[in-house]
Amino acid sequence: MLLKEQYETVRRRSEQICAPLKTEDYVVQPVVDVSPPKWHLGHTTWFFETFILAPNAKGYTVFDPQYNYVFNSYYESVGARVIRTNRGNLSRPAVEDIMRYRKHVDEAMMAFLETPLSRKLTELFILGLNHEEQHQELLYTDIKYILGHNPLFPAYDPQHKDLTPVNNTGPAWLNIRAGMYDIGFSGDGFCFDNELGRHAVYLPEYRISTALVTNTEYLDFIQAGGYQDFRYWHAEGWDWVKNNQVTTPMYWYNIDGQWVHYTWQGLRPLMPDAPVNHISYYEAAAYAAWKGQRLPTEFEWEAAAPQLSWGQRWEWCESAYLPYPGFAKAPGAIGEYNGKFMISQMVLRGGSEVTSPNHSRITYRNFFHPSLRWQFTGIRLAG
Amino acid sequence: MLLKEQYETVRRRSEQICAPLKTEDYVVQPVVDVSPPKWHLGHTTWFFETFILAPNAKGYTVFDPQYNYVFNSYYESVGARVIRTNRGNLSRPAVEDIMRYRKHVDEAMMAFLETPLSRKLTELFILGLNHEEQHQELLYTDIKYILGHNPLFPAYDPQHKDLTPVNNTGPAWLNIRAGMYDIGFSGDGFCFDNELGRHAVYLPEYRISTALVTNTEYLDFIQAGGYQDFRYWHAEGWDWVKNNQVTTPMYWYNIDGQWVHYTWQGLRPLMPDAPVNHISYYEAAAYAAWKGQRLPTEFEWEAAAPQLSWGQRWEWCESAYLPYPGFAKAPGAIGEYNGKFMISQMVLRGGSEVTSPNHSRITYRNFFHPSLRWQFTGIRLAG
Amino acid sequence: MLLKEQYETVRRRSEQICAPLKTEDYVVQPVVDVSPPKWHLGHTTWFFETFILAPNAKGYTVFDPQYNYVFNSYYESVGARVIRTNRGNLSRPAVEDIMRYRKHVDEAMMAFLETPLSRKLTELFILGLNHEEQHQELLYTDIKYILGHNPLFPAYDPQHKDLTPVNNTGPAWLNIRAGMYDIGFSGDGFCFDNELGRHAVYLPEYRISTALVTNTEYLDFIQAGGYQDFRYWHAEGWDWVKNNQVTTPMYWYNIDGQWVHYTWQGLRPLMPDAPVNHISYYEAAAYAAWKGQRLPTEFEWEAAAPQLSWGQRWEWCESAYLPYPGFAKAPGAIGEYNGKFMISQMVLRGGSEVTSPNHSRITYRNFFHPSLRWQFTGIRLAG
Amino acid sequence: MLLKEQYETVRRRSEQICAPLKTEDYVVQPVVDVSPPKWHLGHTTWFFETFILAPNAKGYTVFDPQYNYVFNSYYESVGARVIRTNRGNLSRPAVEDIMRYRKHVDEAMMAFLETPLSRKLTELFILGLNHEEQHQELLYTDIKYILGHNPLFPAYDPQHKDLTPVNNTGPAWLNIRAGMYDIGFSGDGFCFDNELGRHAVYLPEYRISTALVTNTEYLDFIQAGGYQDFRYWHAEGWDWVKNNQVTTPMYWYNIDGQWVHYTWQGLRPLMPDAPVNHISYYEAAAYAAWKGQRLPTEFEWEAAAPQLSWGQRWEWCESAYLPYPGFAKAPGAIGEYNGKFMISQMVLRGGSEVTSPNHSRITYRNFFHPSLRWQFTGIRLAG
Ligand SMILES: [Fe+3]
Ligand SMILES: [Fe+3]
Ligand SMILES: [Fe+3]
Ligand SMILES: [Fe+3]
Repeated sequence: MLLKEQYETVRRRSEQICAPLKTEDYVVQPVVDVSPPKWHLGHTTWFFETFILAPNAKGYTVFDPQYNYVFNSYYESVGARVIRTNRGNLSRPAVEDIMRYRKHVDEAMMAFLETPLSRKLTELFILGLNHEEQHQELLYTDIKYILGHNPLFPAYDPQHKDLTPVNNTGPAWLNIRAGMYDIGFSGDGFCFDNELGRHAVYLPEYRISTALVTNTEYLDFIQAGGYQDFRYWHAEGWDWVKNNQVTTPMYWYNIDGQWVHYTWQGLRPLMPDAPVNHISYYEAAAYAAWKGQRLPTEFEWEAAAPQLSWGQRWEWCESAYLPYPGFAKAPGAIGEYNGKFMISQMVLRGGSEVTSPNHSRITYRNFFHPSLRWQFTGIRLAG
Repeated sequence: MLLKEQYETVRRRSEQICAPLKTEDYVVQPVVDVSPPKWHLGHTTWFFETFILAPNAKGYTVFDPQYNYVFNSYYESVGARVIRTNRGNLSRPAVEDIMRYRKHVDEAMMAFLETPLSRKLTELFILGLNHEEQHQELLYTDIKYILGHNPLFPAYDPQHKDLTPVNNTGPAWLNIRAGMYDIGFSGDGFCFDNELGRHAVYLPEYRISTALVTNTEYLDFIQAGGYQDFRYWHAEGWDWVKNNQVTTPMYWYNIDGQWVHYTWQGLRPLMPDAPVNHISYYEAAAYAAWKGQRLPTEFEWEAAAPQLSWGQRWEWCESAYLPYPGFAKAPGAIGEYNGKFMISQMVLRGGSEVTSPNHSRITYRNFFHPSLRWQFTGIRLAG
Repeated sequence: MLLKEQYETVRRRSEQICAPLKTEDYVVQPVVDVSPPKWHLGHTTWFFETFILAPNAKGYTVFDPQYNYVFNSYYESVGARVIRTNRGNLSRPAVEDIMRYRKHVDEAMMAFLETPLSRKLTELFILGLNHEEQHQELLYTDIKYILGHNPLFPAYDPQHKDLTPVNNTGPAWLNIRAGMYDIGFSGDGFCFDNELGRHAVYLPEYRISTALVTNTEYLDFIQAGGYQDFRYWHAEGWDWVKNNQVTTPMYWYNIDGQWVHYTWQGLRPLMPDAPVNHISYYEAAAYAAWKGQRLPTEFEWEAAAPQLSWGQRWEWCESAYLPYPGFAKAPGAIGEYNGKFMISQMVLRGGSEVTSPNHSRITYRNFFHPSLRWQFTGIRLAG
Repeated sequence: MLLKEQYETVRRRSEQICAPLKTEDYVVQPVVDVSPPKWHLGHTTWFFETFILAPNAKGYTVFDPQYNYVFNSYYESVGARVIRTNRGNLSRPAVEDIMRYRKHVDEAMMAFLETPLSRKLTELFILGLNHEEQHQELLYTDIKYILGHNPLFPAYDPQHKDLTPVNNTGPAWLNIRAGMYDIGFSGDGFCFDNELGRHAVYLPEYRISTALVTNTEYLDFIQAGGYQDFRYWHAEGWDWVKNNQVTTPMYWYNIDGQWVHYTWQGLRPLMPDAPVNHISYYEAAAYAAWKGQRLPTEFEWEAAAPQLSWGQRWEWCESAYLPYPGFAKAPGAIGEYNGKFMISQMVLRGGSEVTSPNHSRITYRNFFHPSLRWQFTGIRLAG
């Protein structure tokens, strides 16, 4: 596909994700991890303006110099500020202003893409597309949080179906023999810097489940008192359960004895065979402990992945997010992309039903703090 | 004026205050004291629906039973909730839904007002209008906060002028002789329950300034190091200054050596003769201490008010908000109106340029926590 | 009594209050309002050293220049600090060092008092004694908190009896007629600056109870669900009840159906006729609201006091702590004594069983934040 | 050595560490990570009483049943509590009571050790000794924190010397070739459960420094502006630097241009050649990034350790604290020992000058949150 077509495809998709929203839905930030949809739309645009157009496109006029301040998430390079603000406090720029910003940048990008790009600029451009695809997944998860935490429980789109669960015939164990496995990206396509440094890892023999844990299986854990028994939990996870009075996955409610969960179509009865969703690392590890199993490491996951069906849920791994041998940050602001988060995060592998098409791959390293669960996260067991 | 006309006038005014807003501006809540404009529009409507229509208008259909949960500020009478939310997290109901809500209730009210009201219902109706007028002032102050804390500093309305300051010829002292003064409301019109219980108060001789402290005068305090000298401040005020790094009134900025402040038209040079605005009680008291003066008590203010020009700024008084002799709460939810706030608040008297027309009066008791200053608050000295 | 004898009496009493303590008890600070006993012993000594000896006693050698930093509660005048500390973190100076400090200052004071003092120095000296007496009451209340919040509930002194309650024949109402009453200190003896400015206050007719509310009466409030019904509470008080899960006065526990409270002798059955103790303003006001009564203002209290029996409990008044007409701060550090606290505090009148002998008087204005209740505080009703 | 002799040696050493303290020093808890010395003395005793004597020694009488509540750090198995307390709020049990408790348990243990122990009891007994040795290191670090954060900076013991630094001839790189390395404990002696599961790890070729980073070298980082340049820091580390205004290692102060640090003898000039001490993981990683190097993984450390001189500082590794293959928690309360902390912690290897003699070993896995630095922690580079 030509760069221009790729650009169009990615950019339009972000807007289509937001199409069912009301203007008000673009604005709010109910918790710190969730960003307002309009911020995502502006921030992804700012990336192309700041890193591609402004330094490279002759005669390009920055849309609004103040937008750098509003849409820059790389806060460290920002100068003095007049006012301390949070994203969710900002009613301006308005959605229509941001749409004009997108149009302004898109037109300049389409013109810029008429002429051939250097290898380095092409890489930066592809990074920009992948960056926007990452934010597309965040758009889905943040929109779900915004609507799913509203007391009216509005549907995102009554036509939008949740993933139909694969008929789950129960977990089968895949045995992987001990040996040396190559881990990390190789090949020609795009990858993030944190996947580079393909290297050998020795793995002892292990087994890994071919199926994700289902809602029904997880309900067993709940009904067996799993959230009330500290023995299954990390000390930090137990504190999290107590302090937040957690008793179910996010979006589950028991209303008059019936289990429901919030979906794209509003509150709906729990789907028994669907892979459990919106699970923190603490919960995933506690479930595994209750089952007498464990979570796979990210190396075990990657070695087994060619034989697994994956992509429904981001799968928590028993691996902290740390650099591969030889990892080096890129210089400049782009170098802040991944490396600076390599502490206190756990790795997730695979992808989810809201991951952008073709965005994930077997070497992809997603990462979040173990307490977070507004992403589409689930559980695969190892043992 | 007929009740229907009064109703129309008050209800339309709320919407006119919001007319210059973009949809996004209706939604945000940058700090806990500020409510989203759409919440004010819904909450004032809920008052008429809940206290007048629902119990009294035959055949009235509640617009949406869930709105009671969203727009009820009398939280104590609300039942179990599924989700904990803050007003600023709620993108729904959308502004257009709230406007339909207003229309629904307005039509029912206009029909209801065709038939004569009992005395008790009339009182409740008048309370509803005064309640909405109070929220109109909050609409102004909350909108100013929302826009004035946005890094783009958008104008509310380029045509909307701030009050032209009265040419201020410097403070003249008015001497009031010692004696018994009657304090509290008397007469036929409307007043809040906290003004009732007219009673005699003995006041020693005192003097009170005929003019409010101006921006220029307050700037003298700043430049004399007033915010750096603990001796002028209450201990609690000094903590507030330090913890919040306060160095000016709210909305003042010194940009490249020039003093500007946020106004309805955006950032503008400070108006030297205007009465200082957006002042906390701590600052008012510190300024007075620096001048070797003090603030008037609310009784001194009320006794002198007939000889004063007032209504530009709410004037902090050296009086805590406490009940008058014989004060009694009304029964039921209406009784929560004022009495439950009679602790840890200081009284403000007068009114401001954003107080609704004819809403204030000489006996009106406004009150806020001493740290708050997003209202249009200023300083009058006594001695 | 000679100054030297007064000095000896006051100084020895502080040490006698601490005599039953173990060394460990002198050190801890379980909550911010409570100070470690050794801090009180040092701080009261620092007062005499800093304000009397250092500037006036020829040849006086400061015991340890670093103690100014440790024992100065007037933090604003302290210079740069190397480390941020809380009183309860400081194991040094040790108790024995503080006792040597007291001895050093006492010897210098006794020598200094051999020669006649100027009028101004005499006043300062008397202030120092009254200051130490205030801290004696704090020693009692802080020791009770330290021991009474220890899970072993150790006795302070098995021989130390709590006040025997006056046989309480139920509240009788004293009627006070309307009129002008003089409020504030007059006469020759000592008073604090906040009592000065004797002035006339007009009081409407009122009635006031001759008896304090008893434990039995307060238990009725508890058993009637008083802590579960928001209607009796200020909004701020209700938040306090909810956030702190308050269901009883401080030190009360219901163990296996029996009501006990912590006393100087350890946990003991509740004394039914004793005046209720360790009550916040919120609780006092809620109790009064439940009874359909109110609390007296501090002016009503003072006007009625000659006809009341008082001194068992500090009695919460429905009066904020604000300056009397003509109040002026003393210059210098001494001026920080009272005025800077005149915001967000409520007045208490009377005295308690742990107030130092002859320390209180009818015009004495004690004050605390409405949430505090580790002092010996109770309830007298008015109506 | 006989079990009785081992027991005597370990138990007496704990008391000797505390010998220079004043009673007051046993009581305080300046931050949540530091425990009062008296708590350590009681808690290590409680371990022997609870896990060995109470269930196994016939006729043993528990010293005080309430001590279980005070000295149990395995909070999850504790029943209902009357009062919420923090360790630093507890003046009782007094130090002398705890010493009597130690004597009571020691006498019972010495009698119990007269008869032969089962294999399982012997293991538990050895675990108890190792547990007390761990707390001995904490006694040192907590005492240093208590005294070193006192504004008087008292010496722990004027005779107690800090480690004489090895003459440091600059870092030399040790090259380790790629290959399979066995990681984890093997052999007969004691180890903790987290060291078990000896397993092969493949390591690519790497180099590791033979010397620890010195104070002088770290000072270069400070003077090069390392604490002001976000590029060297993890995002979480940079927040930590900003929020805590960190500009040096713990205990360093620049007084009038001279660098001093708190030592066992009080404030002393910085020793230039000593290995830098009291460093967080964030600081260690930032220093490494500034040098263009990195920290070793715990596997690299263990593989190289036989060729290294170690034991002066706990060395931060670029490895999260996670279970080895096949790790399984022990059943019961003992099983809470290590596994429940396997999240959000980084591994440290080696040992320090305050580690108990013979307590560490090449497979020992220490772990702390990356922000903590009151332990004796330093930096070894890899590349
Ligand atoms: Fe981004
Ligand atoms: Fe309202
Ligand atoms: Fe004092
Ligand atoms: Fe332990």
